[in-house]
Amino acid sequence: MGQEGRIIVHTGNGKGKTTAALGCAIRALGHGQKVCVVQFLKGKGDYGERLFAEKLNDLEWHICGQGFVFNKDEISNDQEVARRGFALAREKVLSDRFDLLILDEITYLPFYNFLEVEEIVELLKTKPQRLSVILTGRNAHKSLIEIADTVTDMTVIKHGFNDGIKAQKGIEF
Amino acid sequence: MGQEGRIIVHTGNGKGKTTAALGCAIRALGHGQKVCVVQFLKGKGDYGERLFAEKLNDLEWHICGQGFVFNKDEISNDQEVARRGFALAREKVLSDRFDLLILDEITYLPFYNFLEVEEIVELLKTKPQRLSVILTGRNAHKSLIEIADTVTDMTVIKHGFNDGIKAQKGIEF
Repeated sequence: MGQEGRIIVHTGNGKGKTTAALGCAIRALGHGQKVCVVQFLKGKGDYGERLFAEKLNDLEWHICGQGFVFNKDEISNDQEVARRGFALAREKVLSDRFDLLILDEITYLPFYNFLEVEEIVELLKTKPQRLSVILTGRNAHKSLIEIADTVTDMTVIKHGFNDGIKAQKGIEF
Repeated sequence: MGQEGRIIVHTGNGKGKTTAALGCAIRALGHGQKVCVVQFLKGKGDYGERLFAEKLNDLEWHICGQGFVFNKDEISNDQEVARRGFALAREKVLSDRFDLLILDEITYLPFYNFLEVEEIVELLKTKPQRLSVILTGRNAHKSLIEIADTVTDMTVIKHGFNDGIKAQKGIEF
């Protein structure tokens, strides 16, 4: 009897949405599980997690975005990229090869109308039983909150960026 | 010119405090940095992250607790263990061998009066410049919030445990 896979959302404006998903990836890998990460809307920069992931056999990593997005003005013409990313995510879900799938920053797709949220909900409904999915990003749509069993809002109490601290190697990327 | 190390707190009742710290560990390791984890108040169970960590050269992992703590009744006679754990943490800070130190669940030490919060604050004030420290756990003392540059409250929006979902391999441990 296998485990029932989970649906988990990390949202909110605070730090820790992506890293908490990565921490779960580490747990899963430690137990010999297979993990896939699909990153939406993040660029191909020098992210530590990706450099680390390159050394791991049981972790697949896909990047579908064109750059880190902080505000709406910076995302243009990304719909096609987003849709291709989602098609890839669907393929990974349906492959039934993974125990954990991380859809990093996927919440932006419905938020910016690149994708109907129902498409994501439908995909989650048809996922293999054992597969857990973690969805991250700000402004998670209420339909994602509804279908998830566990939702955490990473709430900013204090953020170094507001005091002029710059994004830092090993911490923010 | 090296980076200025950060002081980061992950607190709140929601899921993601420890995993977000582990995600930062992955980022740091990806950049070739050295990481140390000291876990307070967690037992020696079959945690995926620890099984994973055993394979890594640049990650040191220490466990100082005697079991996972959910309520006050379950922690007794732990003061000595906690103090020994903190002495170890101090040693790791002062060794200047690490870029990132994770003090997992350390917030419980002052909360349960195992340790004066000032001892932690003093240690953070004397840390090597390049060292970043992430402190996790519920009920972070205001002195820890004050000294941190970045604080996130992992706020529960929904938690599977409340619906009878059990802690799950690869997700909660």
